[in-house]
Amino acid sequence: MSAATDRPTVAMLMYPGMTMLDLIGPYEVLNKMTDVHLVAADLNEMVSDAGFPCRPTTLLAETPTAVDVLFVPGGDGSVDAMQNPEILDYLADRGARARYVTSVCTGSLVLGAAGLLRGYKASSYWASRHLLTLFGAVPTDGRVVMDRNRITAGGVTAGIDFALALLAEMLGEDAAMLTQLRLEYDPAPPYNSGSPTTASQSAVQLVRSNLEPFNRQVETVASVS
Amino acid sequence: MSAATDRPTVAMLMYPGMTMLDLIGPYEVLNKMTDVHLVAADLNEMVSDAGFPCRPTTLLAETPTAVDVLFVPGGDGSVDAMQNPEILDYLADRGARARYVTSVCTGSLVLGAAGLLRGYKASSYWASRHLLTLFGAVPTDGRVVMDRNRITAGGVTAGIDFALALLAEMLGEDAAMLTQLRLEYDPAPPYNSGSPTTASQSAVQLVRSNLEPFNRQVETVASVS
Repeated sequence: MSAATDRPTVAMLMYPGMTMLDLIGPYEVLNKMTDVHLVAADLNEMVSDAGFPCRPTTLLAETPTAVDVLFVPGGDGSVDAMQNPEILDYLADRGARARYVTSVCTGSLVLGAAGLLRGYKASSYWASRHLLTLFGAVPTDGRVVMDRNRITAGGVTAGIDFALALLAEMLGEDAAMLTQLRLEYDPAPPYNSGSPTTASQSAVQLVRSNLEPFNRQVETVASVS
Repeated sequence: MSAATDRPTVAMLMYPGMTMLDLIGPYEVLNKMTDVHLVAADLNEMVSDAGFPCRPTTLLAETPTAVDVLFVPGGDGSVDAMQNPEILDYLADRGARARYVTSVCTGSLVLGAAGLLRGYKASSYWASRHLLTLFGAVPTDGRVVMDRNRITAGGVTAGIDFALALLAEMLGEDAAMLTQLRLEYDPAPPYNSGSPTTASQSAVQLVRSNLEPFNRQVETVASVS
């Protein structure tokens, strides 16, 4: 918690090539009731994996040493983040002291590369989840998976569900329910195609094959680390 | 559509004080299959209503004259956008030619201020929706409301449902279902508190009273315009 208030402190990692929605879903859920730091190795503008220009606000070294929440988004750039010693050292250090160590999508692979998921059940993007074994984690089917103080979410949009669960955990169910109303989060997807168990086989195959190069890169990183 | 491809062109307005998730939900749904322009009056960095630093990519004047989709997000700053002649002129001009004129959350009030919703059914953030009458629109209960080529969504997270529906409209159901899987959009809110009909009365009252100053400002803007 912040010294002067009972607002939890949240360090959200940013890196080039992250997926904006992985970050912004949790950001919008958390920012009204917590102190959010948008942290990165430098404060230069960066672009997301789809080219969205944005900028962090806090240097890694300037993040409070004991944050309530350490959070890592996913995205195409997560394979580079997994090879960045400054990011890995930061996550290992803050992760050892954080109340909650958390991620959305392939952010859990970055946590894994930092050694933070060994022996923990964890989730990730559905088509990359099996790779968690490379980092000693136990791939677990679930939109939000909690194992002790590790809370890892499924792909992209799972970050909204994750952050509401986290808010309830930290500040109570009323805070989470108020936030859900504030964000008018009463989802009504026009199709039932949001998971590999409900989508068409052709869609599943297409996403899997598009993700193959990313998954291969993760395997290479894991094999040399 | 772009001249050289069959990718629809999408102009997404950005302005200081917008809500990031209003923009980023649709952005992530649309960016893989359309040409997205992040448009604003200048290309300086701006911050969202929660302080998130980001930057547009395309000047208003440089947007294609006939876009497939004109899109406006909501947020605290929408009341300033409603009073910005450059933005209103741009929306009126492009809105007259766009295939679809669209918004999320209080973005529909900005469309209204630009004269684009007169006689149209439209949605908005649940606690501001009634204000659409000030601009000649017909406030309509609904997460995604389509009336001819106007497609307006409810608050914040409704943008994801809206953009999937828009994608289906433009590129077919398979494109929308593939995108839903890619974003692992299989929502599982931990509570049933995302609309004023399901949330507690105390939560509804709190959000309403927090929004009062914003609603008053909109009424003032409408009365002098």
